[in-house]
Amino acid sequence: MSRQFNMSGPIEISQACVDDPFWSAEQELVRTAVLPYQWRALNDKVPGASPSYCMHNFRAAAALNKRLNGQEGSGDFQPPTYTNQGFHCLPEDPDHPDPDKFYGYVFQDTDFSKWVEAVGYSLAHHPDADLERLADGAIDIVCAAQLDSGYLDTYYILNGMNRHFTNLKDHHELYCLGHLIEGAIAYYQGTGKTKLLHAAERFADYVAATFGPGDNQLHGYPGHEIAEMALIRLYETTGIKRYLDLAAYFVNQRGTSPLYFEQEDRQRAAYEHADFTIDDSRPAPYAYYQAHEPVAQQRQAVGHAVRAGYLYAGAADVARLTEDPALNEAVHAVWRDIVDKKLYVTGGVGADADAESHSYAYDLPNDTGYCETCASVAMVFFARRMLQLDPRSEYADVMELALYNTVLDGMAMDGKSFFYGNPLEVRPQTKRNKDPRYSYVPIVRKRWFGCACCPPNLARLVESVQDYAYTLAEDGSTLFVHLYIGGRIQADLGEGSIELRVQSELPWKGRIRLEVEASSDGRTTLALRLPSWAGGDAAADAVTVHTGQGSSNAISRRLEQGYLYLSGPWKQGDRIDIDFDMPVRVVAANPLVSQDAGKVAVTRGPMVYCAEERDNGANLHLLHLDGSALSGDASRVKVEPFIFQAGAYLDDPQAEGHVDTVSRSMVRLQVPAWREPAEGADTAPLYRQWQPVRRMPTTATLIPYFAWSNRGENEMRVFLDVD
Amino acid sequence: MSRQFNMSGPIEISQACVDDPFWSAEQELVRTAVLPYQWRALNDKVPGASPSYCMHNFRAAAALNKRLNGQEGSGDFQPPTYTNQGFHCLPEDPDHPDPDKFYGYVFQDTDFSKWVEAVGYSLAHHPDADLERLADGAIDIVCAAQLDSGYLDTYYILNGMNRHFTNLKDHHELYCLGHLIEGAIAYYQGTGKTKLLHAAERFADYVAATFGPGDNQLHGYPGHEIAEMALIRLYETTGIKRYLDLAAYFVNQRGTSPLYFEQEDRQRAAYEHADFTIDDSRPAPYAYYQAHEPVAQQRQAVGHAVRAGYLYAGAADVARLTEDPALNEAVHAVWRDIVDKKLYVTGGVGADADAESHSYAYDLPNDTGYCETCASVAMVFFARRMLQLDPRSEYADVMELALYNTVLDGMAMDGKSFFYGNPLEVRPQTKRNKDPRYSYVPIVRKRWFGCACCPPNLARLVESVQDYAYTLAEDGSTLFVHLYIGGRIQADLGEGSIELRVQSELPWKGRIRLEVEASSDGRTTLALRLPSWAGGDAAADAVTVHTGQGSSNAISRRLEQGYLYLSGPWKQGDRIDIDFDMPVRVVAANPLVSQDAGKVAVTRGPMVYCAEERDNGANLHLLHLDGSALSGDASRVKVEPFIFQAGAYLDDPQAEGHVDTVSRSMVRLQVPAWREPAEGADTAPLYRQWQPVRRMPTTATLIPYFAWSNRGENEMRVFLDVD
Repeated sequence: MSRQFNMSGPIEISQACVDDPFWSAEQELVRTAVLPYQWRALNDKVPGASPSYCMHNFRAAAALNKRLNGQEGSGDFQPPTYTNQGFHCLPEDPDHPDPDKFYGYVFQDTDFSKWVEAVGYSLAHHPDADLERLADGAIDIVCAAQLDSGYLDTYYILNGMNRHFTNLKDHHELYCLGHLIEGAIAYYQGTGKTKLLHAAERFADYVAATFGPGDNQLHGYPGHEIAEMALIRLYETTGIKRYLDLAAYFVNQRGTSPLYFEQEDRQRAAYEHADFTIDDSRPAPYAYYQAHEPVAQQRQAVGHAVRAGYLYAGAADVARLTEDPALNEAVHAVWRDIVDKKLYVTGGVGADADAESHSYAYDLPNDTGYCETCASVAMVFFARRMLQLDPRSEYADVMELALYNTVLDGMAMDGKSFFYGNPLEVRPQTKRNKDPRYSYVPIVRKRWFGCACCPPNLARLVESVQDYAYTLAEDGSTLFVHLYIGGRIQADLGEGSIELRVQSELPWKGRIRLEVEASSDGRTTLALRLPSWAGGDAAADAVTVHTGQGSSNAISRRLEQGYLYLSGPWKQGDRIDIDFDMPVRVVAANPLVSQDAGKVAVTRGPMVYCAEERDNGANLHLLHLDGSALSGDASRVKVEPFIFQAGAYLDDPQAEGHVDTVSRSMVRLQVPAWREPAEGADTAPLYRQWQPVRRMPTTATLIPYFAWSNRGENEMRVFLDVD
Repeated sequence: MSRQFNMSGPIEISQACVDDPFWSAEQELVRTAVLPYQWRALNDKVPGASPSYCMHNFRAAAALNKRLNGQEGSGDFQPPTYTNQGFHCLPEDPDHPDPDKFYGYVFQDTDFSKWVEAVGYSLAHHPDADLERLADGAIDIVCAAQLDSGYLDTYYILNGMNRHFTNLKDHHELYCLGHLIEGAIAYYQGTGKTKLLHAAERFADYVAATFGPGDNQLHGYPGHEIAEMALIRLYETTGIKRYLDLAAYFVNQRGTSPLYFEQEDRQRAAYEHADFTIDDSRPAPYAYYQAHEPVAQQRQAVGHAVRAGYLYAGAADVARLTEDPALNEAVHAVWRDIVDKKLYVTGGVGADADAESHSYAYDLPNDTGYCETCASVAMVFFARRMLQLDPRSEYADVMELALYNTVLDGMAMDGKSFFYGNPLEVRPQTKRNKDPRYSYVPIVRKRWFGCACCPPNLARLVESVQDYAYTLAEDGSTLFVHLYIGGRIQADLGEGSIELRVQSELPWKGRIRLEVEASSDGRTTLALRLPSWAGGDAAADAVTVHTGQGSSNAISRRLEQGYLYLSGPWKQGDRIDIDFDMPVRVVAANPLVSQDAGKVAVTRGPMVYCAEERDNGANLHLLHLDGSALSGDASRVKVEPFIFQAGAYLDDPQAEGHVDTVSRSMVRLQVPAWREPAEGADTAPLYRQWQPVRRMPTTATLIPYFAWSNRGENEMRVFLDVD
């Protein structure tokens, strides 16, 4: 692998800030609505919501720890009797949980870690003494729960340490480690405080001693990945190579023969005197965990889509830092498999709701597709790691697509309710009739989830979105601009530094301005992404450089893999003006996607659009975009700025689907269309002699996908018939 | 209700026989392939197939019975520990089942009853001393298992009688009674032997004493209906009014408040010291059993589609015989609900695979729709009862549709494998990838099923199909001909009798001849159905009467509700020649059926057609019928007689999907069509700028639906895109 020149790393959170009409609103929602709500949720203080028991568990573990002076208890592991398969434990009397018992999901500790991560990002740019005091108090409790050995997972601390690390496949201890590291680093970067970071390091040290190739070590790896990329981040933060080695071990050991999870399953069955059978409900056992074959040999994206995305992100990190050509080939192949065969037009992944998993090639159902919010978060992680390996605009295109659509769709306009899954087509009658085929398909957002992975995952990503906008080449020569988000960026270059002010009218207009606010001496390259929605390489013509000398001749221009490299002696006052074309695009899927045959999606810039019943009436399957009007080009579509009025009122404002009044500027599309009439259909026969359909001309009103389901329960479609 | 004149009853099996190119072949398959196979299955002698344990259980019960001299045992009920929720019991060591234990499904006794029913029909026209001896031997075993009280269900006889009739909802004892009656009557009618009939009567007497409005009686009813229509048949066979009363009690008591099943569930929970919770996974608790509201108030077809069809058939019987206007209104309303909102174009019902149930209005998914073979058998039963109430050709149209399509589709061309579900669209990749959304959707037929309801249900219907071709008005004045199946029919009329010889070229051609072979004196009416596929009332012109006198003036013609009533002094040698038009029909679904938007099905006569990959290539979603060629009329479709070659060879001839070589004359359709090209699609991007599709002209070859999946695993679609 000789791509060293092109490798890049992220900017530290404190070096970039957001000041952007679109993204500041999202961050503000997270800061003012999500973080306080999440804190109450962690402490089981949200009326009507499934209790988290997260802080309860840390308190219980801290109390036990105090009694035992930080040592492991000597008692045998007692799997909770009040549990559903050891996975979700609920108190027998919900009003009186036992203060000494573990409750919630086995991975419930991560609720804290994800919250403190978002808090760390927020504090980096919005100092808030009350919030910081709250977080410090929580950190004290969490750290008090840590054993002297460094181990820190309340499920085993409370239920019996003698069985810890015996069910890596499903019991998420290493997942808890990963999230703890991510949270600790963010809090350290946001506040400079090291207490939680040291706790995370101690847990990581314990794991590094326990896992590895040594005879006395366990040869296992996480059942739910994330530790891989977290350990890389810990390595990049601390410089301690042990963490890189452990990440590399986890990635390279995964799926090697004999399969660790199969051995573990056999041993656990023997211990429990239970039968061992291989789960053959899927084509490849353990593919759900991406642990069916060595990662370096994997070519297809399989299994649980969040696990998969986290693994691929971690593997790309390891490939980059260990310069491993086999791993590099694997992540590139898996990326292609996703983007060419398994990615929804919205940036969603994971078509198979039953297993929250990638489905097979070209299987992209619109109505039952899962598209978990977290899976799109994971795709953003993966895409940025691919950019770090290899700056091609394709990666940033997908990253941007997922961010603006499936990620943001996860949160209501008022920041108070959330989607776990993000379907491309819903009909409320599936819910009214409790149709089991659609049991995973939400029609409106929920306040919270017992398994609350998505809201805090979205929160931590939105609060750190600037981290995905930029990377810096390893040699400090090039600052890559992947996303155009207003704000400031200060980057330490090889031979100095540069500071930019960015103004952006995205996602509604293609106008962007980058101003050099400060620059040290030396030749610097700014590599600007040319989005595919703006025409790819052709969009370079939309980029104009104004240098302080009144001429930009000193700045060289070079196009490579979808980036415009502008190199030269950048000076304070230099300016780049961009006016990307933002045409409406009418997009068809590959003919092998049977679910999209005869249909199109409409996009503009990074936004994917959808039709809601609220604007277009019911029975959206009878709404057709007018193919003859659209053929050739999409110029007959009217692009219309408007004020979106969110709000859905229910008697109980805590109920599913309630959205407070929010107004937000957006752009909607008015598309020539026709409708098949359905008057009298409910009294007409079920079958009739076919005749060409009578076309009633109309206009389809399309709104940005992320805004749907903010005006009450109604039908929605992304893919619409065209003819 | 003053429809008495129009009420009619079925012909006894011995009075009508089949001699018909199409149906004789089907009956021959059942007689020569299915019945012997079924006997081996009942006796657990089919290598590789799930054992039935049916005769095992009867033998075990007979042995126990002998030990206890026909008395109930005194031991407490022991729910099998080797069972899955008390529903399907399997031996711990499959090679050594305990000879004294019950195995299989709780309703496993019905495997025998359904077999002996088909045997009875078969013996009525095909005397077979060996088969009769085999059946007599089985009957001896079954009767030896009957308790002195008359009770006969081996599940409770073997597991403990003290809990019998405590789980009517799920434990199928009254379902076993119903099937036993049906089998016993058929065997009596086929052989004149009464032993099994008397056993059935004794069980019915026991149930009649146990259930009813009395203070000391149980106020319950069957969890899985069938006893209702079986008891009506027993009443009509024996003339004993007690059986009519019991049937009427079961129908009228069902769903009354307080709900019996809810009370039973509460009591059973208390007995088992378990929590009682109402299952609210569906909109109306107990609607799965059609037991959510009184039957006379029901207006919608809901719940398990086989149960539903059996109930509606029984309710129509009771409505007819008790002249109950409320019940009459209910069955008419439910019929309309099915036919107007829940019936597949193939005659299938039960769109919801998860619960084997009717779904909500207009929800007719082609790819996940269940359409259980048994549910179509039940629709045939229901339709004939509606005809008996009210002779409208609509009922016979649906009966015929279900028979020729979803029922016959249940069996492979070699009679050796069977479909449980009958989807309208399959793609083999769903099976190859173990896609859980399609876990109930078969691609190829199976040899047998542990829960073997469908193959024997199909067998008993095919062997008695002539029973559905005719009914006789109660006053003996009118012989209704509902289906045109070649053979002979002898009917005892009010004032004499008539004997007809029928020749039919259905389903491939509309030519039918009915010859009067004998007729006693008196004015007789022959009421001939005018099928909707032949034009309905207009098809009366296709019916020509030739009387012996060379003139048919003496025969009056009257049209009513889709029947041509031909009345007059029919004499030997008189003849009716019919030449129904059999146009190709291109059928669209109601626009409220979202799954069929933009699609059509093609039918001709009673047959529904489908496209298989074998004839049309893969990716059937890219095959479009040519709308401009078809608009106006369907005359550009080529109707082509051909020899269908069934056969799919696998290394293991017992494996799923193996079909022996069979040739059969059929008609296929060649339809003008076009294809969207897909060359290179597997290396093309997943999304692209939409352009109107390039149309590659082609011809779609459609085969009769019942013949699909006889040439190996491949794609199939009934509804095809048209434009």
